Amino acid sequence: MIHAEVLFHIADTLEARKSADPKSSYVSELLHKGEDAVLKKVAEEAAEVLMASKDGSKLHLVREVADLWFHSMVLLTYHGLRPDDVLVELKRREGISGHDEKAARAAQQG
Amino acid sequence: MIHAEVLFHIADTLEARKSADPKSSYVSELLHKGEDAVLKKVAEEAAEVLMASKDGSKLHLVREVADLWFHSMVLLTYHGLRPDDVLVELKRREGISGHDEKAARAAQQG
Amino acid sequence: MIHAEVLFHIADTLEARKSADPKSSYVSELLHKGEDAVLKKVAEEAAEVLMASKDGSKLHLVREVADLWFHSMVLLTYHGLRPDDVLVELKRREGISGHDEKAARAAQQG
Amino acid sequence: MIHAEVLFHIADTLEARKSADPKSSYVSELLHKGEDAVLKKVAEEAAEVLMASKDGSKLHLVREVADLWFHSMVLLTYHGLRPDDVLVELKRREGISGHDEKAARAAQQG
Repeated sequence: MIHAEVLFHIADTLEARKSADPKSSYVSELLHKGEDAVLKKVAEEAAEVLMASKDGSKLHLVREVADLWFHSMVLLTYHGLRPDDVLVELKRREGISGHDEKAARAAQQG
Repeated sequence: MIHAEVLFHIADTLEARKSADPKSSYVSELLHKGEDAVLKKVAEEAAEVLMASKDGSKLHLVREVADLWFHSMVLLTYHGLRPDDVLVELKRREGISGHDEKAARAAQQG
Repeated sequence: MIHAEVLFHIADTLEARKSADPKSSYVSELLHKGEDAVLKKVAEEAAEVLMASKDGSKLHLVREVADLWFHSMVLLTYHGLRPDDVLVELKRREGISGHDEKAARAAQQG
Repeated sequence: MIHAEVLFHIADTLEARKSADPKSSYVSELLHKGEDAVLKKVAEEAAEVLMASKDGSKLHLVREVADLWFHSMVLLTYHGLRPDDVLVELKRREGISGHDEKAARAAQQG
């Protein structure tokens, strides 16, 4: 099984990019452009997830979900947040429900 | 640090929901409705991430990213995929780049 | 040829709904719920346009684009704007370009 | 009052672009890239509508709705459809309802 800690490594890298020269990397440039640029990428990747799903290509879908999660993490970095915060929230919902039905209902509140 | 394994627990739960009675839970009902219903939720949650970010509410943003990741996982479940596949893809990109600049470039290929 | 004035009739109806009892109609209720509710619908209809296009169903696509334009107009109404404003903007771009290439470039500025 | 016929002029221009050299204009290039490229633009413009609305800038919002409608029309052109089809659908809903409540309900079916 893959260690999910890759999310934390990525978060560390993203944080380092935040204070780096905008020209030094794609992420540094994106964060430097500002919130709307990051949000456009999140929306674009969500759209690509939809298209990959409709195309029925599993490999493509996995790549697009990876892109969506990656850019969600760039957004979290922009706001000084980390994937840990999201995982704690997901775990909290699990805890409330004892892994049952209510976890889903909590998720539905969105 | 939170154990990112919560993603795997959720994936296990989602898989169990897939074959359950549609009336037994929110996720079972959503998966039963089919691909378009799941995709609508992914798009809706992405939109809510945008709105929460613009509102500048960090707590709200964390909840909406959690919803987005949760419904991405419902979509993966629909296609017989798991978060592990996404994490392997994210790790692969990291490996290529040695945690550096190219990780971002790979992500940009989307 | 259909008279595009249907857009103005709809705008008039939407304006009347804005001050009506929230329980009196779908649009009154939606406008009463507020900006985020309207924006969620715009995002949802855009997602449905994507899905209809990928499904290759022209009839379905026309209906979804109609839904997208309709809810765009609800959003305009929310902000005290009208489709006329959008049409003037589209005409302005055409005017600049003399119906040529530049119209497209102007649109691209988005 | 602006003549809504600008939509038909744009549709005529878009149709001419469809068969033109991809290098000759933004729209020709976009249509040449294919369906997914057009859909990405529709999704991107919908996201920009959300952001402009949240920013509370009416001028910006009008421009983004214009972009969204423009790219919806590019998508219609891609599928051999025209704005007339969308307007007929909107008029059909109005007709059913006698300009009343049910128009909205019909729109809600989306």
